[in-house]
Amino acid sequence: MDDFEDFRTTITPLLKERRLDTLRALLDAEDAAEIVQLLEREDAGDRAVLYRLLQRDKALEVFELLDQGMRAELVGGLREEDVQRVFEELDPDDRAQLIDELPAKVAKYLMRGLSPAERELTAPMLGYDKNSTGRFMSTEYVLLAPGWTLGDALSHVRHRGMDAETVYTLPVTSERREVLGVVGLRELVMGRSDSLVEEVMTDARSAVASEPAEASARDLVESGHLAAPVVDSQNRILGILTIDDATRILEEAEDRDAARQGASEPLGRPYLTTPVFGIVKSRVVWLLVLAVSALLTVQVLDIFEATLEQVVTLALFIPLLTGTAGNTGSQAATTVTRALAMGEVSKRDALTVMWREVRVGAILGGLLGILGFALASLVFGPPLGAVIGLTLLSICTLAATVGGLMPILAQAVKADPAVFSTPFISTFCDATSLIIYFVVATWILGL
Amino acid sequence: MDDFEDFRTTITPLLKERRLDTLRALLDAEDAAEIVQLLEREDAGDRAVLYRLLQRDKALEVFELLDQGMRAELVGGLREEDVQRVFEELDPDDRAQLIDELPAKVAKYLMRGLSPAERELTAPMLGYDKNSTGRFMSTEYVLLAPGWTLGDALSHVRHRGMDAETVYTLPVTSERREVLGVVGLRELVMGRSDSLVEEVMTDARSAVASEPAEASARDLVESGHLAAPVVDSQNRILGILTIDDATRILEEAEDRDAARQGASEPLGRPYLTTPVFGIVKSRVVWLLVLAVSALLTVQVLDIFEATLEQVVTLALFIPLLTGTAGNTGSQAATTVTRALAMGEVSKRDALTVMWREVRVGAILGGLLGILGFALASLVFGPPLGAVIGLTLLSICTLAATVGGLMPILAQAVKADPAVFSTPFISTFCDATSLIIYFVVATWILGL
Repeated sequence: MDDFEDFRTTITPLLKERRLDTLRALLDAEDAAEIVQLLEREDAGDRAVLYRLLQRDKALEVFELLDQGMRAELVGGLREEDVQRVFEELDPDDRAQLIDELPAKVAKYLMRGLSPAERELTAPMLGYDKNSTGRFMSTEYVLLAPGWTLGDALSHVRHRGMDAETVYTLPVTSERREVLGVVGLRELVMGRSDSLVEEVMTDARSAVASEPAEASARDLVESGHLAAPVVDSQNRILGILTIDDATRILEEAEDRDAARQGASEPLGRPYLTTPVFGIVKSRVVWLLVLAVSALLTVQVLDIFEATLEQVVTLALFIPLLTGTAGNTGSQAATTVTRALAMGEVSKRDALTVMWREVRVGAILGGLLGILGFALASLVFGPPLGAVIGLTLLSICTLAATVGGLMPILAQAVKADPAVFSTPFISTFCDATSLIIYFVVATWILGL
Repeated sequence: MDDFEDFRTTITPLLKERRLDTLRALLDAEDAAEIVQLLEREDAGDRAVLYRLLQRDKALEVFELLDQGMRAELVGGLREEDVQRVFEELDPDDRAQLIDELPAKVAKYLMRGLSPAERELTAPMLGYDKNSTGRFMSTEYVLLAPGWTLGDALSHVRHRGMDAETVYTLPVTSERREVLGVVGLRELVMGRSDSLVEEVMTDARSAVASEPAEASARDLVESGHLAAPVVDSQNRILGILTIDDATRILEEAEDRDAARQGASEPLGRPYLTTPVFGIVKSRVVWLLVLAVSALLTVQVLDIFEATLEQVVTLALFIPLLTGTAGNTGSQAATTVTRALAMGEVSKRDALTVMWREVRVGAILGGLLGILGFALASLVFGPPLGAVIGLTLLSICTLAATVGGLMPILAQAVKADPAVFSTPFISTFCDATSLIIYFVVATWILGL
């Protein structure tokens, strides 16, 4: 990180004075990953200037490491011939994703400019949904036949592997292009050259092109393999999903989950280069929705205003109680959301989850309740102590249960569990914990 | 998932009746990943029974796919000779991590039972910190010399690659074992056999063994390579970090971040097999700390009790205001925590982040404030409307600023940004927003 800061400190004045030759030399000596870090911190204008200084190969490497949003913006700042060049040299899967981000007119124009061979490689993925596996597969792969010897297979790889995205995982297919298994390059190299491909091939964990990319990516990562064949519904090969694409897909999914858990939308680009209004946009809708839902708490309190007037002291505990309910609910929601994402829990486990959370909530509520009873009794007397203690017990049990079930419910209605979890649960818990609080208070204090 | 449910439905009664032969046959036909899913849903006793039924190779594969916590528990339920066997066959890096989870006595005993060769491979990593790269590296690798021809190198790989964790990335080292670069197996296979290794090798992005594993893993994933050499401070080779280990490291880190963002500790094992008390344990400390901090809000309100008695209506807006402040703070904290984790922001950017969040907070607060003013004026009259509007503007600005800065501060004092972010910010925002609220109210309403 410190090396990078030094590098950036050197670059900034040179960029201001537009000393392009010196900059070009400096950039040449730098790693693609460092250059990406640099671009992520510069504004759009300087970014385009820097990018144009890169050598052809490095430019491509850097482009492939950029976020989707940054790619589209960069394309907007480059000259036409630079764009055409980058576009022609991109991998077909990256190209398909870039097209999603660009204005339709630009996309069409760029596709027309492609060489016929590259256009043919790109076209198939454009038919798939934006978040499906098909969009992320590579269409440049090498196939083996089951009857070949390993020696033949290896020389086939030598001839045909130049353009392939990976040759480390080689799908073995029938004559009708059905996937029969996979062979690793390692097995080809280490095996006896007169063994047959079908003798060393292992079962393929294929991904289906129309299925969600996130599920396929997680499967691939969990299998411990480096790539998986992507197939159609008839198990015919369409492409290959590589581990680095899978990691990228999962990272974007985590990004989205983390953002939504914190009640905002993912920025889709580095924080420091997102305009202030872009950040506002990612947060405003959520904040408004939650604030409007919180009007419910105003109404609940309005109902109990007479009780509040009689015992103003009750108001003192409102933030403590709503806050604790919100925290308990968030804890349960976070754990279950994560378990859903990892496939550890499915909607059939709803009752099991509920029963676990009832017990966890009751234990936590019991502990907090005893503590709350003791403290509040000391300061405000035993009757108010009993109100606080009982309320804590009830709201923790309720909040944990609701917090644990909500993500499962969300998934059952095909919504993103992360959206319906933490922020909504907090607001829901605020309102219900107030009702419980005042009902308990009216009862115990005899109001 | 549905296939899996069918599979589980078949297994459960057989397991109850202990029909071991039928179970063995069923398990033989199943994928390791499916078996892991099954084990994650059974209790400790059944898990050990099922595990013992697995064939030797599959048992190892399944063991490697389990979480750390599950591994240690499973070892506790197995017979001594089963444990010794699994332990001997594990990769050295998995073995080192298992030792961390086991009681010291068991660990020592198992290490003593290892063959000398395996002990020698495992010992080096035990010298490194639990979360350092050294703990996750593989010590079974194949080295190349720069002066070899590709033909020689390839036959070296053929002879020595059997036991290596990966042969897809091959470090090239000097005679003093300093890393000079790396060569992919792809380059060995595709290149001319009389070319020299040094002609095709590329720069290595080495990881340093004593550095944090998470940073090395992220570097590797971002580089797009399949493995990175792990070196000591003198750039001498110690091991190799593979992409699947890197993905696992990152997944555990995300797990921890997600849990802490929701105010709990990661379970480290699947939700459904964690005992209820284990879940309570992961949450209780956080919940207590937050509840105790929330006593601050009781005190703040206690100070303003006289004001509250004069205008009880003020109490109606307490949950709405604290909730909104908490949400605004969480949004900022989540975004910045993520940006820190991705290396997009460092502590030198603190002022930039602060200035961005001040503006974002003011814009959001302005919008909500206008809305709040309008609604509250309608129902409770313009003076109270003005109080609500002004309070919303101030607390949103403050909450966004604090929320954005807190993770950076946490990192500056070497704490986990995720810990100090969301939950603490909510509590902090609750207390400060109450103070702002009552100060504004006293001023505008002339109390």
